[in-house]
Amino acid sequence: MDIQQLVEDVLNDVEVYRGHGEVASYIPALARVNPKKLGLAIACKDGQVYGAGDADEPFSIQSISKVFALNLALDHVGASLWNHVGREPSGSPFNSIVQLEQEKGKPRNPLINAGAIVTVDNIMGDGAADEAVAEILDFLRERAGDPTVDIDQEVAISESQAGYLNRSLAYFVSAFGNLRNPVEEVLSAYFRQCAIAMSCRQLAKAALYLAFDGKDPVSGEEITIASRARRINALMLTCGHYDNSGDFAYRIGLPGKSGVGGGILPIVPGFGSIVVWSPGLNAAGTSLAGAAALERLVERTGWSVFV
Amino acid sequence: MDIQQLVEDVLNDVEVYRGHGEVASYIPALARVNPKKLGLAIACKDGQVYGAGDADEPFSIQSISKVFALNLALDHVGASLWNHVGREPSGSPFNSIVQLEQEKGKPRNPLINAGAIVTVDNIMGDGAADEAVAEILDFLRERAGDPTVDIDQEVAISESQAGYLNRSLAYFVSAFGNLRNPVEEVLSAYFRQCAIAMSCRQLAKAALYLAFDGKDPVSGEEITIASRARRINALMLTCGHYDNSGDFAYRIGLPGKSGVGGGILPIVPGFGSIVVWSPGLNAAGTSLAGAAALERLVERTGWSVFV
Amino acid sequence: MDIQQLVEDVLNDVEVYRGHGEVASYIPALARVNPKKLGLAIACKDGQVYGAGDADEPFSIQSISKVFALNLALDHVGASLWNHVGREPSGSPFNSIVQLEQEKGKPRNPLINAGAIVTVDNIMGDGAADEAVAEILDFLRERAGDPTVDIDQEVAISESQAGYLNRSLAYFVSAFGNLRNPVEEVLSAYFRQCAIAMSCRQLAKAALYLAFDGKDPVSGEEITIASRARRINALMLTCGHYDNSGDFAYRIGLPGKSGVGGGILPIVPGFGSIVVWSPGLNAAGTSLAGAAALERLVERTGWSVFV
Amino acid sequence: MDIQQLVEDVLNDVEVYRGHGEVASYIPALARVNPKKLGLAIACKDGQVYGAGDADEPFSIQSISKVFALNLALDHVGASLWNHVGREPSGSPFNSIVQLEQEKGKPRNPLINAGAIVTVDNIMGDGAADEAVAEILDFLRERAGDPTVDIDQEVAISESQAGYLNRSLAYFVSAFGNLRNPVEEVLSAYFRQCAIAMSCRQLAKAALYLAFDGKDPVSGEEITIASRARRINALMLTCGHYDNSGDFAYRIGLPGKSGVGGGILPIVPGFGSIVVWSPGLNAAGTSLAGAAALERLVERTGWSVFV
Repeated sequence: MDIQQLVEDVLNDVEVYRGHGEVASYIPALARVNPKKLGLAIACKDGQVYGAGDADEPFSIQSISKVFALNLALDHVGASLWNHVGREPSGSPFNSIVQLEQEKGKPRNPLINAGAIVTVDNIMGDGAADEAVAEILDFLRERAGDPTVDIDQEVAISESQAGYLNRSLAYFVSAFGNLRNPVEEVLSAYFRQCAIAMSCRQLAKAALYLAFDGKDPVSGEEITIASRARRINALMLTCGHYDNSGDFAYRIGLPGKSGVGGGILPIVPGFGSIVVWSPGLNAAGTSLAGAAALERLVERTGWSVFV
Repeated sequence: MDIQQLVEDVLNDVEVYRGHGEVASYIPALARVNPKKLGLAIACKDGQVYGAGDADEPFSIQSISKVFALNLALDHVGASLWNHVGREPSGSPFNSIVQLEQEKGKPRNPLINAGAIVTVDNIMGDGAADEAVAEILDFLRERAGDPTVDIDQEVAISESQAGYLNRSLAYFVSAFGNLRNPVEEVLSAYFRQCAIAMSCRQLAKAALYLAFDGKDPVSGEEITIASRARRINALMLTCGHYDNSGDFAYRIGLPGKSGVGGGILPIVPGFGSIVVWSPGLNAAGTSLAGAAALERLVERTGWSVFV
Repeated sequence: MDIQQLVEDVLNDVEVYRGHGEVASYIPALARVNPKKLGLAIACKDGQVYGAGDADEPFSIQSISKVFALNLALDHVGASLWNHVGREPSGSPFNSIVQLEQEKGKPRNPLINAGAIVTVDNIMGDGAADEAVAEILDFLRERAGDPTVDIDQEVAISESQAGYLNRSLAYFVSAFGNLRNPVEEVLSAYFRQCAIAMSCRQLAKAALYLAFDGKDPVSGEEITIASRARRINALMLTCGHYDNSGDFAYRIGLPGKSGVGGGILPIVPGFGSIVVWSPGLNAAGTSLAGAAALERLVERTGWSVFV
Repeated sequence: MDIQQLVEDVLNDVEVYRGHGEVASYIPALARVNPKKLGLAIACKDGQVYGAGDADEPFSIQSISKVFALNLALDHVGASLWNHVGREPSGSPFNSIVQLEQEKGKPRNPLINAGAIVTVDNIMGDGAADEAVAEILDFLRERAGDPTVDIDQEVAISESQAGYLNRSLAYFVSAFGNLRNPVEEVLSAYFRQCAIAMSCRQLAKAALYLAFDGKDPVSGEEITIASRARRINALMLTCGHYDNSGDFAYRIGLPGKSGVGGGILPIVPGFGSIVVWSPGLNAAGTSLAGAAALERLVERTGWSVFV
């Protein structure tokens, strides 16, 4: 299979969707992104990354950061993380607070906002937000093989200023004793983690180990233990798209995580990792052209974990 | 890999769990089952079925029937089924009515009770319950290669007599115009579908096509179209265990469906199908020894869709 | 105060609202009622009943029947009724099932549908629906001083045929063991109770004892004990209008009960009882012209329990 | 009626309950209060206030402050307050956030925490928290005729430090644009308002105008317009005790407001105002001995708005 041809063909397939959907507008820094952007990259077992369109332009990875934060939190505290956050699909939007009340401050899973706040608190230990953010950033820089990966400070500041709902979620969790660090310190880490900017190419490369049981397929280095990599994939499949996770599994059939910046990261176990980016979102908060591209991609390749 | 040895070893591994958990007691016919029963069967690509323990004793397949009913309903009405039932995880117990109200009578997915009631209504068309039941039964007999597969009439009668919650769900759905047939007629089909009795061996064989993109791997016959088989697997992975689906995906990593009769059916795409049966249930309504056996099985084999 | 003049003036005040709102359409027999109907009656301490407009035309009292059924159930089983139904406002529409699940089959109060179904079950004891219906009917006939008060059989049959949601509620309650009689038998009583037809004049007269601590103010006969009459008024004030009860208390300031037939029954403790009827309903299912008439009435008279 | 004898008799009646229940422990300053305290005061039309027990000892009025803040907010912004907060019973605990999400940041009523936060925001206008607090305090000082009424600063600081849930509620409301002032500024006013300390005698005197259609019955001065006073009473009756409001109306039959400091303020329209205080709370967060005293009081007097 000619992967370079594939990524180009897929982008051609979905050219008609370019610019469709609604760009996330809750923070000014995201709303200003050009809605016509569309990029796709596929990282393969040999370390090659094939890209097309705007695959080299950094975008705000937003909730896709939750996948890597989850990995680091599990590395820090192991299975005790599950005392603080569940691993069931929420059946609710990303920022819902209803289940938090029913479940006494224990978020449903680490891939919704409340759960990601708890997750970064577990990376922090009893330490500072700055260290946790540095740890996430260093991890992504090393995985992407690019030390210039960084936080978009303008986005980070906007996130914090507009973060009423996330503040509400964090104080709620804290009211039940489920944060060990001060709420504003945890939020400071969370907002910065979401504001990391990466290109499709960088992000696909960074996630490659998740397709190979936790090992870097080029160097053979164990990035995380095999069972952990599998389980992160399982969580992405059941919980990676909020109340749209079932539909994504049904239509795309791959574990993945979406972000309101317009990025989507699916994993093809044993083959590689994919990142598509286009800022216009569908009603469920997933990139509209991005999801269309992934549908075309799996139709063309037959990729699915279910066969 | 010596599969016969494997099934025997796995049952030895979990001997300590035999008889643990609570046997479903809401209907007398289920409550009388011997809690010490434990069986395991694996059907492979070549059609061979390897069994151990009580793998030849018929048990009430209960909600596992929903998988096959879903397939038949999709064969009948295609994607229009999704106008009547969603495909998102519910995040709620199998018999919850809360979401039904919030979502105006459209059940979350076809693998919870309300969704399965809508599903069998779509098999019925405008016809009789008897025909829909016969269709499901014929499908399972043919797939299992055993014309003696049948409904346990005592269980079916008990289901109907004790079926207050299911009646409530069905009338609720009907209040929103989401059943085309009379409520009691639909329930009559649903209760009988749940009361089908099969052995681990029969059921594993019957489900084998789901591991091979909808084709019988022995005869090559297309039982259902490839995309449909994949999507049924996707629904099992995200929704197959009610509010325990995320945990099952996390721990077992395979698409599967559990029933309160104590059976669990996981699919290993490209390899085969598994059925484990033990009547004692954990708090989430899944077979306790059965889930333990599956955990040991995937540890021993490395089977997972996430690698 | 010239009460006859008052009732006529109030109807003139709201002439502009005559025919506004939506007539209940869920059953054909109700949908056929002339939307222009508008009647008002006030029964006073001396037994005089003053009426105007369509005050002598029978209408379907619907949920107003719940007030009298509550009284009879309390007479039958006393405070043990509260083991089966609560006495808190629901904050939800009349037919909501969400709280029923959260509260394990115990309806919030006797004035929502699920609670009224439990209430009539407690009138039935272990007896027949026919006897319970006869008891309610006899009570209303005697209170109204008119043996011709009767059930509108066409409405009763329609209620049953269209009663999917009520069936769902009743089966749900029954699933939690909270009905002692068979579901269909209880529903048969409930549907007939709701289909009783009375005029404003008859209904105001029938409810007069609730304004006088349970005593018929003319004969001095104790219809129910004083504390019970007060408490029924309390329940009407907090729960009499579903999720509109707070607004009714705020705007009208009197205990009352509305029905989807367009009737509203408020009580003026120490003075008398009021019935207004007009079939067009507002968004909350309360008579639009009826509520307007009551607002004008309390403005003109200063009647309120809060002064 | 000898009111002084009455208050003493009622306290004797409930001596057995003294010290029962759980003292609010969520803030240290409240938890330190002597659980044996028990006081009762009744203010009458002629301005006389009769007290017994610990009726002269200041306690933390907590949520009882919401009644006066509601009055002041209505004086400031009139009916436009209802664009920001509803007036329906919540059917939920005082600090529930579930309905806030369902109703998009508009709290159910001004007597639950979220609603009271919105209410004080409407007293603030676009001004400072200090001014709003001063306004509430001045109002209570003048009504109580005692310029020494003040905020318990230790309680206020504790409230703020322990106020995770209230912070969560406030940020949630703010996320929907339903606060005009900065969240922390509004909370600063809310926490201090709740920390006002008054004795039974002072508080009963301060609330007397609510029993007389908004007029001070001694001076004849109009404290608020008549319809407003009635409506505040209506809101107390339907919403004054969170998810226990229906039960309070059923058992006591008077409009009232309770606070977690152990105080309860009922109004007897046309007669006077009552304050009972005892720190031990029942499961619903209402003073246990206090509610018992009120039950005895209405049994002895027959006071009820429903007769």
